[in-house]
Amino acid sequence: MNVIGIKTPLIKPEDDLVEVILDSINNYKNLELKDEDILVLASSAVSTVEGRIRNIDAVNPSEKAKELARESDLDERLVEIIIHESDEILHPFKDCILTIKDGMLRINAGVDRTNVPSGKALLLPKNPKKSAAKLRRKIEAKTGKKLGVIISDSHVNPLRRGTTGQAIGTSGIKESLDRRNERDLYGNVLQITFQGVGDQLAAAAQLLMGEADESIPAVVIRGAKAAFSNKPERSLKIPPEKCVYSKFLDY
Amino acid sequence: MNVIGIKTPLIKPEDDLVEVILDSINNYKNLELKDEDILVLASSAVSTVEGRIRNIDAVNPSEKAKELARESDLDERLVEIIIHESDEILHPFKDCILTIKDGMLRINAGVDRTNVPSGKALLLPKNPKKSAAKLRRKIEAKTGKKLGVIISDSHVNPLRRGTTGQAIGTSGIKESLDRRNERDLYGNVLQITFQGVGDQLAAAAQLLMGEADESIPAVVIRGAKAAFSNKPERSLKIPPEKCVYSKFLDY
Repeated sequence: MNVIGIKTPLIKPEDDLVEVILDSINNYKNLELKDEDILVLASSAVSTVEGRIRNIDAVNPSEKAKELARESDLDERLVEIIIHESDEILHPFKDCILTIKDGMLRINAGVDRTNVPSGKALLLPKNPKKSAAKLRRKIEAKTGKKLGVIISDSHVNPLRRGTTGQAIGTSGIKESLDRRNERDLYGNVLQITFQGVGDQLAAAAQLLMGEADESIPAVVIRGAKAAFSNKPERSLKIPPEKCVYSKFLDY
Repeated sequence: MNVIGIKTPLIKPEDDLVEVILDSINNYKNLELKDEDILVLASSAVSTVEGRIRNIDAVNPSEKAKELARESDLDERLVEIIIHESDEILHPFKDCILTIKDGMLRINAGVDRTNVPSGKALLLPKNPKKSAAKLRRKIEAKTGKKLGVIISDSHVNPLRRGTTGQAIGTSGIKESLDRRNERDLYGNVLQITFQGVGDQLAAAAQLLMGEADESIPAVVIRGAKAAFSNKPERSLKIPPEKCVYSKFLDY
């Protein structure tokens, strides 16, 4: 499997993201998109071209935001944006608030002040699944290739230092592979195993995207073990009551 | 970055894991380990050669094990092993028990009945960090190359369907990169960002290792963005009180 980071110019709100990325791929010698390549796109790049940027100065913080800001040491106007973006506020912590956003655990509901001009905040794409499908259609139309598209976002895991990646929107490949009823090396039948292919690919891509000024908002993954499909059957999201961590998420 | 799965014969308890893997790498045309390659090894392979296998029949379940077995629907003898392997039992769930093992969240304390003969259970390596260091020294001595070694294990994340991977023991590279005080694309200084390189690499490798009968217990990663070092400064583990999820883990 090959994981190739694509360096691009700074993505601006008025950019055509597909154009910028395809142009940047063209700058790499001997790299041309092929059938069954997977293109992983940084959520921040997708958000930027979708105009998901808020002026922090323009926000009037509510009482709830002020209280959470005191508890987390965050800017109360930023907290107001976070409240607005969250499905659920789970708990404030020093410098961040743990939330559920779009059915996923996200620090600060994915609202980010990095890689956005000072005084502004970048929100997650409004509907990442829809964005992934739209971007895939456009890239496939332009290249004539059958691809997978994943929108990935930095993610922190419990009891772990540092970010990995999660697939917040996917199109063209199955996000998880059902391995139940397959057999292991000794012929034992697997009982409950799904493989979170989308998150595994997102983590691999996030390694190259980095967290600072890498300017790598796109990663091409070639030769991945993925199931290409126009109708992904299962999402990586699971309802809280089906999650082994449920007791700890107040459900 | 190149991620290359190494197919091996079935790993048996009496095997010399390093021999088997180096022999298997030799079977791949044009593949020879190079300086700064990272070798990711499946925890199950390491456990197997370390004799971390228990006979389930030989276990006498305690009252606590019987109670947890009723709550989780697991074999009470298996539960006894899980209790013994856990730092802490967090909560039983259908078919599995959420535990803390060696400072990490692990389903069933990593005790696994897949990829082990029927009637037996495979435990995690006793000291994965030590195992990684030992394996690295041996591989470096045999190949003359300077490498990183990661022992990876399947892991499930909250609210996500499917497994990713986590680095449970690492040697030769920094498990996390401190990106604080670096600047983002707009010159903003990053405040709290670490990058969990070890887990990102483990997730990428786990994609190729799979979950069933793939027989790929080793993955070579070439061209990764990693910091090679004989003294990794920071582990991926963080103490519960420093974790944003702490409230949900009963701390």
